[in-house]
Amino acid sequence: MPQPSDNLCIILVATRNPLNLGAAARAMSNFGVSHLRVVNPYELAFREARSAVGAAALLASAEEYKSVADAVADCTLVVGTTAVRHRELQHPLRRLEYGARPIRTQLARGGGGRVALLFGSEKVGLSNQDLSHCHWLMHIPTREEHMSMNLGQAVAVCLYELVREARSARQPATPKRATAGEAERITAVLLEALHASGYVKPSAAALTAEKVRRLVRRLNLQAADAEVLLGMLRQIVWKLGL
Amino acid sequence: MPQPSDNLCIILVATRNPLNLGAAARAMSNFGVSHLRVVNPYELAFREARSAVGAAALLASAEEYKSVADAVADCTLVVGTTAVRHRELQHPLRRLEYGARPIRTQLARGGGGRVALLFGSEKVGLSNQDLSHCHWLMHIPTREEHMSMNLGQAVAVCLYELVREARSARQPATPKRATAGEAERITAVLLEALHASGYVKPSAAALTAEKVRRLVRRLNLQAADAEVLLGMLRQIVWKLGL
Repeated sequence: MPQPSDNLCIILVATRNPLNLGAAARAMSNFGVSHLRVVNPYELAFREARSAVGAAALLASAEEYKSVADAVADCTLVVGTTAVRHRELQHPLRRLEYGARPIRTQLARGGGGRVALLFGSEKVGLSNQDLSHCHWLMHIPTREEHMSMNLGQAVAVCLYELVREARSARQPATPKRATAGEAERITAVLLEALHASGYVKPSAAALTAEKVRRLVRRLNLQAADAEVLLGMLRQIVWKLGL
Repeated sequence: MPQPSDNLCIILVATRNPLNLGAAARAMSNFGVSHLRVVNPYELAFREARSAVGAAALLASAEEYKSVADAVADCTLVVGTTAVRHRELQHPLRRLEYGARPIRTQLARGGGGRVALLFGSEKVGLSNQDLSHCHWLMHIPTREEHMSMNLGQAVAVCLYELVREARSARQPATPKRATAGEAERITAVLLEALHASGYVKPSAAALTAEKVRRLVRRLNLQAADAEVLLGMLRQIVWKLGL
C-alpha cells in the first residue's frame, strides 16, 4: 500500500561529513521516508556513510545527482531548509510547524506529485543558486543565539514534524481509577495502622481521620495500586497487632 | 527573565559515544535548554564531548552523578524515553506529542518544580532499575520496523516538541509537588515497614523494591502530603521495630 511519505524526497546538497549522511539516512528509516537523493556529496562521505547503523539499504538505493536542478526535476513542490532568518531571503520563510502542513496535505493527496525537501552543506547551507530552485523555505524554531543545527538532527526534526499525523495515533488506554469505596477501605486500614503505632493522639482522632481521608483521595489511586496498597497495609496492621 | 525551559533537565544515562553526548548538548543549546546531567557516562565519552560544536559551555557546566536516584532527586516529574513499545512496560507510555503537553504545562507554571527527561545508553536504553525512578515514559513515533533512533537525534526531536509552545503560557499555580528525592525517601521507609511486617519475601526483595518505587511514583504526591506520609511511615516502622 503506498504511503503518503512515498512521495517525499530528501535531498542532501554537498554534504561533507559521512556521519551526517548516515544520520540523515537513519532518521529517514526511523520515520519511514525512503527516497534519498544526494547532490555532489564529498565522495568519501558518501562511500563511508554506507555503513551507517540501520540505514544501509536506504543509502544503497540513494540516487546521486550533479545538480539541484536535476535532483528536483520530477518534483512538484521544492522546499529548502535554512537556519538563516535575518538575511535578505528572496523566498517566503515558514516555521517548520506551519510549513509542514501544506506538505502533509500534498503528500496525502493522491496524484499531488513529489515533494522535495532540501538540506544544504554543514558549513554554508544552501547557496542562493540552490535556493532559486525552491518554492519556499522552512526553518526549525531554534534559539536566535544558536540557530544552526547539526544536519542529521535537523533532518530528524523535520521528518518527525512531517510524518507526525501520518501514523495512526493509538493512545494507550488510561488505567482504571480506584473507586471511592476502595479509597475508603485504604483509609480505614491506614488509620488502624496509625492507631496501632501510636501516631494518632486520642484527642485528635476525628481530625486525623479526616486528614487521612483527604490525603488518600489526593493520591488519585489507580485500581490496581489500591489493591496492592491495601494488601501492604493489612500485613502491616496484622504485624502491629501481634 | 526565567524561561519555562530553565526547569527542564536533560539526563543522559551511561552514554558511550562522545559524538552523541556532543550532539545532545548542541540540540539543547539550539532549543535553549541548559541543564545537562550525566549519570555514569563512559569517562572518555564525557571528556571528548567537551569539544563538541557550539555546546562547549553547556558541557562544561554539565553535572555528573553516580546514580539516577541522585540525578533526579530535586525533580518533581521524571519522564523516561524509550523506543520499546511491545515488551511488558510497567509504566504508562505516551507518544511524544501527547507526553509533551503535561510537561510544557508544568514548565510554564511557576513553582511546578523541575522536570527530568531521561535518555538511556545507545545499546540498551534505560534499564528497569532506571525506569523505576520514572513517573511515566515517552516514545517518539517511529516506524515499527526501525524504531530505535540515534541518541542525539532523539534528544533533538524531543526538545523540538517540548519547547514548541514555550511562549510563556502562565498557568495558575497548583500545589507544590513532591521531589523525586522525597518520593525515594517514602519508598525506602515503606520498604522498611514491608520488610519488618513480613510482606516482602526475601527471594523477591529486589523485585518488590522496584514495584514499590513505581507505585510511589504513580501516587503523584504533593510536597505537603509526602511529608505527612513520611511521618506516618516512620512512626509505623518505629513501632514495628519494638
